[in-house]
Amino acid sequence: MADKITPRSQDFSEWYQDVVLQAKLADYSPVKGCMVIRPNGYSIWEKIQSNLDRRIKQSGARNAYFPFFIPESFMKKEAEHVEGFAPELAIVTHAGGKKLEEPLVARPTSETIINSMFAKWIQSYRDLPLMINQWANVVRWEMRTRLFLRTTEFLWQEGHTCHATLEEAETETRTMLTHYREFAEEILAMPVIAGRKSDSEKFAGALRTYTIEAMMQDKKALQAGTSHNLSDNFAKAFETKFLDKDSKQKFVHQTSWGVSTRLIGGMVMTHSDDKGLVLPPRLASTHIVIVPIMPKPETKDKILEACRNLKASIEANQDVTKLPYDIGVFVDDDETKQAGWKFFEHELIGTPIRIELGPKDLEKGTVVMTRRDIGKKEFIAMDQVAVKVAHDLVAMQKELLEKALKFREENTIRVKTYDEFKSKIEAGGFFMAPWNQKKDSEAKVKEETKATIRCLPLGADFEPIKTDEPCMITGEKGNNVLAIFARSY
Amino acid sequence: MADKITPRSQDFSEWYQDVVLQAKLADYSPVKGCMVIRPNGYSIWEKIQSNLDRRIKQSGARNAYFPFFIPESFMKKEAEHVEGFAPELAIVTHAGGKKLEEPLVARPTSETIINSMFAKWIQSYRDLPLMINQWANVVRWEMRTRLFLRTTEFLWQEGHTCHATLEEAETETRTMLTHYREFAEEILAMPVIAGRKSDSEKFAGALRTYTIEAMMQDKKALQAGTSHNLSDNFAKAFETKFLDKDSKQKFVHQTSWGVSTRLIGGMVMTHSDDKGLVLPPRLASTHIVIVPIMPKPETKDKILEACRNLKASIEANQDVTKLPYDIGVFVDDDETKQAGWKFFEHELIGTPIRIELGPKDLEKGTVVMTRRDIGKKEFIAMDQVAVKVAHDLVAMQKELLEKALKFREENTIRVKTYDEFKSKIEAGGFFMAPWNQKKDSEAKVKEETKATIRCLPLGADFEPIKTDEPCMITGEKGNNVLAIFARSY
Repeated sequence: MADKITPRSQDFSEWYQDVVLQAKLADYSPVKGCMVIRPNGYSIWEKIQSNLDRRIKQSGARNAYFPFFIPESFMKKEAEHVEGFAPELAIVTHAGGKKLEEPLVARPTSETIINSMFAKWIQSYRDLPLMINQWANVVRWEMRTRLFLRTTEFLWQEGHTCHATLEEAETETRTMLTHYREFAEEILAMPVIAGRKSDSEKFAGALRTYTIEAMMQDKKALQAGTSHNLSDNFAKAFETKFLDKDSKQKFVHQTSWGVSTRLIGGMVMTHSDDKGLVLPPRLASTHIVIVPIMPKPETKDKILEACRNLKASIEANQDVTKLPYDIGVFVDDDETKQAGWKFFEHELIGTPIRIELGPKDLEKGTVVMTRRDIGKKEFIAMDQVAVKVAHDLVAMQKELLEKALKFREENTIRVKTYDEFKSKIEAGGFFMAPWNQKKDSEAKVKEETKATIRCLPLGADFEPIKTDEPCMITGEKGNNVLAIFARSY
Repeated sequence: MADKITPRSQDFSEWYQDVVLQAKLADYSPVKGCMVIRPNGYSIWEKIQSNLDRRIKQSGARNAYFPFFIPESFMKKEAEHVEGFAPELAIVTHAGGKKLEEPLVARPTSETIINSMFAKWIQSYRDLPLMINQWANVVRWEMRTRLFLRTTEFLWQEGHTCHATLEEAETETRTMLTHYREFAEEILAMPVIAGRKSDSEKFAGALRTYTIEAMMQDKKALQAGTSHNLSDNFAKAFETKFLDKDSKQKFVHQTSWGVSTRLIGGMVMTHSDDKGLVLPPRLASTHIVIVPIMPKPETKDKILEACRNLKASIEANQDVTKLPYDIGVFVDDDETKQAGWKFFEHELIGTPIRIELGPKDLEKGTVVMTRRDIGKKEFIAMDQVAVKVAHDLVAMQKELLEKALKFREENTIRVKTYDEFKSKIEAGGFFMAPWNQKKDSEAKVKEETKATIRCLPLGADFEPIKTDEPCMITGEKGNNVLAIFARSY
């Protein structure tokens, strides 16, 4: 039996760690800052991968694989890039029993090594657009780590595309941001705000970075995915050129975009509760656990048979329900464990629906059904179960998103003055306020309140939203946009 | 237009490299010994992954992910393991701007780091069997590398299982070997001989290693997958123990098993020809290319329409044909390229079936169809195409295996004396001969002929096949088994 989970109200950070460890999503490893993703966690990553991979391929990118090691000199070719990543690099100095002529770094991201190949593969406008995606492990030597949210090694996908013009690159950057937003909402049931990063928060080497930002249950922000317009910054560093239709040699314009195993941490902190994991059905492998209640040996066989028939009837109904996934049904017939233990266990690991079936249910032709997120017991006629579970899985997916969206809206505060902001920031939340787009005002907020600009939300034209109101920090007018300030992971 | 491919008869090794590079399966990277897997190659890896992953999960293992970096001290805990892998390690000495207290090695395989977690997770016999699989990149600093076949970094899956007894571990080791053999034959259309490795060829740290060995078109052997019974060697080194039903603490017995991106190289060297890649339909994403022949502008639209209708009719027929995959159909309507160029291109990249459709075909209601592997043109009535392509894809998959099997059988030679062996080894092939199971005779063959014992083929009892014939090398009798000697990759 697992240990008790620290309640969220007592210590949110401890609660998160308890849920991740006890639901066996991940574990600490003997390598500092690196985690082990256990099967319960990895199966969620597989669901994320398969859905996102489909979207990425539909967008026109193809998967490929580039080396994990990057020559140290490559990292130095783009000035901002090296400045941003140098402090986080892991460096291989010896290999095969010898000192290397040039040290290799473990990839923190792959723009440099990929550009060295793009420069070789691209000759003409006919080779464009070139759209590549890679599923890979990357390494960033972080000082303070946290399971899934910030680890020294993590898994992600990184898309890298080349285009003939800056405009095409910008379009691709925005398209992928939209894919990420839709994916987060539809699959993770995690509402996100899509916006542009301020210059001081953008990717090291990008012209412009877009982000999706989610609100966790402790009202802190989590950056959940980014999409960068790299302009021709890396192309210039690596001489990635093409012969255009007008017979001129031009640099390509590039994008890169990625999401990582961090999404799993974000999903946990969005939906889970003091009993353990709450898993959106789109991320579950086992959607329904059927727990036989067998108080007397003489009815055992009948109960078990009814449970198995129920499982078969749910599975047989799959074609009719037209869910975009196969429903996984598990009859937990382990006789060495009490029913109560099983209830506890499946609440902990987040099985979306529990069905209890005992002698009295069998007599009445009903079962007891409980949705993990709302926890209310319902009596359902046996022949209605297959339809009911399909309905409930759809409803649960939808309602988890709605609940999280409501939570975010209730905790998003429109502030006009810096005093108001400072008086409320301790209680947490997203703070929407006018900002003069200057680095020093942004830095002042960060220093004085530990809050940062998470993003500049976008209008219908995909541009930051201009406002005539005075800057929350300086009172200045004239060049202000709306910004979301928050403390973050 | 690509360069000419070196014919196999002229230089097999050059031919292989030409096919891999020109079919854009992979490319050399700026990092010594590391390759880039390009989209055409990676899509083959994805087909391998999805099919094998299904088999692995059906066998009871679940996917997980362990750290890429391993503390150097872990590698030293199992004596044979460190001896086997020490010369190939890449070592991280600095990270995050500081010298590490203990160096980390890039995983060459994950038995050690995984055992450190197994030791923590396993307490009782109830926790067994524990079956884990990992898809990951690994690093072995090889001196001489070759695209796909031997690279410093490669992609693979590594299964790691724990069992209560040595017998159960042996059963699992054999089960996974059988899965690999079936997978290689059914999906790669690559016949393999399943056998046991001699002691000097087994995995560093294993009690016993099984292997599948394939014959390439140059008659050399390729080790295509291995499955190891690790006994309690790693369990002892890492204290991986469990409390058994008899209340005694016991070491677990383990297995590990893996195949890698090397399979792609093996598949290329099994089927491809002087025109380029020959791809078994199970590994293709695009199975059929339809090339419109458009000599006159006035018939262009009609021809294109007929091509698109043909594509639609093939796709509509998918449910009827019941192939275990979706047929990918591509209408190559690029008007900047000649039909002849397209024929050449699709032969190079291995599209299994080509269909030509021109004005005369349209009049006659036929198309010209050519299977990539046999290259013979056939005239097929338009309304028969959907059925014919499904039939041909099944036939091609089957015949590629049969052809490769026939080739292997014709080049597998039963020899009785060492003189006979030495006189024939230069011409290549597999040599089946009695062996006395002693290291010195094995070493003598290797030194004198560069051939090694690829495996000891298995009888119906899954044991090496005993023989009364005298040892090919020493003439000894009494403890002889049949062995396959060959030069290898």
